[in-house]
Amino acid sequence: MEPEVIRDKEAMRRWSRAMRSQGKTIGLVPTMGYLHDGHLSLVRQSLTLADVTVVSIYVNPGQFSPTEDLSTYPSDFSGDLVKLAALSGGKVVVFNPRNLYDYGGGERKKVNNGGGGRVVSCVEEGGGLGHETWIRVERLEKGLCGKSRPVFFRGVATIVTKLFNIVEPDVAVFGKKDYQQWRIIQRMVRDLDFGIEIVGSDIAREKDGLAMSSRNVRLSDEERQRALSISRSLAMAKASVAKGQTSCTELKGMIIQQLVGSDGRVDYVEIVDQETLEGVEEIKSGVVICVAAWFGTVRLIDNIEIDISL
Amino acid sequence: MEPEVIRDKEAMRRWSRAMRSQGKTIGLVPTMGYLHDGHLSLVRQSLTLADVTVVSIYVNPGQFSPTEDLSTYPSDFSGDLVKLAALSGGKVVVFNPRNLYDYGGGERKKVNNGGGGRVVSCVEEGGGLGHETWIRVERLEKGLCGKSRPVFFRGVATIVTKLFNIVEPDVAVFGKKDYQQWRIIQRMVRDLDFGIEIVGSDIAREKDGLAMSSRNVRLSDEERQRALSISRSLAMAKASVAKGQTSCTELKGMIIQQLVGSDGRVDYVEIVDQETLEGVEEIKSGVVICVAAWFGTVRLIDNIEIDISL
Repeated sequence: MEPEVIRDKEAMRRWSRAMRSQGKTIGLVPTMGYLHDGHLSLVRQSLTLADVTVVSIYVNPGQFSPTEDLSTYPSDFSGDLVKLAALSGGKVVVFNPRNLYDYGGGERKKVNNGGGGRVVSCVEEGGGLGHETWIRVERLEKGLCGKSRPVFFRGVATIVTKLFNIVEPDVAVFGKKDYQQWRIIQRMVRDLDFGIEIVGSDIAREKDGLAMSSRNVRLSDEERQRALSISRSLAMAKASVAKGQTSCTELKGMIIQQLVGSDGRVDYVEIVDQETLEGVEEIKSGVVICVAAWFGTVRLIDNIEIDISL
Repeated sequence: MEPEVIRDKEAMRRWSRAMRSQGKTIGLVPTMGYLHDGHLSLVRQSLTLADVTVVSIYVNPGQFSPTEDLSTYPSDFSGDLVKLAALSGGKVVVFNPRNLYDYGGGERKKVNNGGGGRVVSCVEEGGGLGHETWIRVERLEKGLCGKSRPVFFRGVATIVTKLFNIVEPDVAVFGKKDYQQWRIIQRMVRDLDFGIEIVGSDIAREKDGLAMSSRNVRLSDEERQRALSISRSLAMAKASVAKGQTSCTELKGMIIQQLVGSDGRVDYVEIVDQETLEGVEEIKSGVVICVAAWFGTVRLIDNIEIDISL
């Protein structure tokens, strides 16, 4: 049976509060839709952690800059419902709001927010009474994907807060594929004292090793073959550390060589502390190797955690 | 009977959730202590709006810059409890945490955040694993008090969010004396979809007209006499509008003249739209006149709303 779909935020909050008043715990899995097995594994994990699970499906304009791929972001809402209907093990509802930045506050004065090198997202065309509150996780948002996508994590932290306040969950599950996002949400929840447990879920991969992503469908067959260099080089780097390699310069060089050798355009290859996401020179404690690279017109990210006990 | 004092944030959240599970509604009045009749009127208002009221008493280092008066901010915790005990009409508890920015996460790497003209508050000495999440209400935070206190509203929005997430109230009461703060919290609650009603409470004044403030005790008798020029000039401006004056230049000039004539040092006199807080040239709709001025070493603020129906 297809899950119930709730589109209104007040109705969503009422539903959650009714569940809570019945003593039920609530899980949240925030998604932008076009669900793949990676998303479904997050939902399955949430179903083991909470009595009922809310899957939000909302492509958040607040995390896209006007030059990014908001309008072409893939979607298949009816397909998403079919996939969720096939899950068992607990109650799932879908929260699918139309626009979480429309406050219905009458006319908006148009102001130009685009000048002066300020970073703006796709929700900032209106001024005056429009949305203007943003959450900054000031250190963690800066590196890795934050360098090339300056509005991204501000938008993610803000929409996740909005979803937390609407759904009021007990636990929320995030994929570790978006490693920086997961760490940012964890830090935000700690710093803002949300009463919500944040769970990170391991990366789901295709059989050939490619990390699952809604953007994978945009790869041609040939690009996809070349993109396997990402997961392959990460696995090789991890094996190399196991054999004693501790120089991050060496490890990054090895990965870059493989990506470039597969005609990938490297955005970054970084080896960072798992919590602070600060760059590391020499592997002495737990790190994560993070990669972002373009194959054709598609930007892909992936990562691998390396745990070291000294 | 003195109110129960809760110091631990987990205990506070448990208390609130227990109240809610009994079907009780919860009011929150955030304060920095040293309670005066203005605060008490907020608590009284909360008691009429909710079944139980949490008064938080916490001097928030996140809204003070290192050069401001955090260490000398007045306090009288036992006196505060006596004043709250004298209130009737409902149950009050006090939330008095020790440090809401200490996450107990082991050692912190010291980093220098103070350079390069960045704005920093009193909680940013630690880097690495220290607090780093801040809420910006980007347009409303800029004018009025935001000009001379660049970290202030970032700190206010952030601590109020923390208190909202710990106390999980149904309604929160703020004084309109801090008009910009009240509008920022309203906007933040709208933009972040908090399920909390925000109530603004009229300014409480001493018999002679001085707006009540914890900082008033620092005025000498003579300074206090001179400071009456603030409320007096605001009332005169309002009367002048009632008689047909609509030029904000004229009105501001009149107020500045009185403040300067009383040896006040004007920080700002602004006439702004009540919602957007944008400056107004000609009074055509509802505005608020906001004043900040120094008398001796004490910076005082006050304001008066002028409602116009055309």
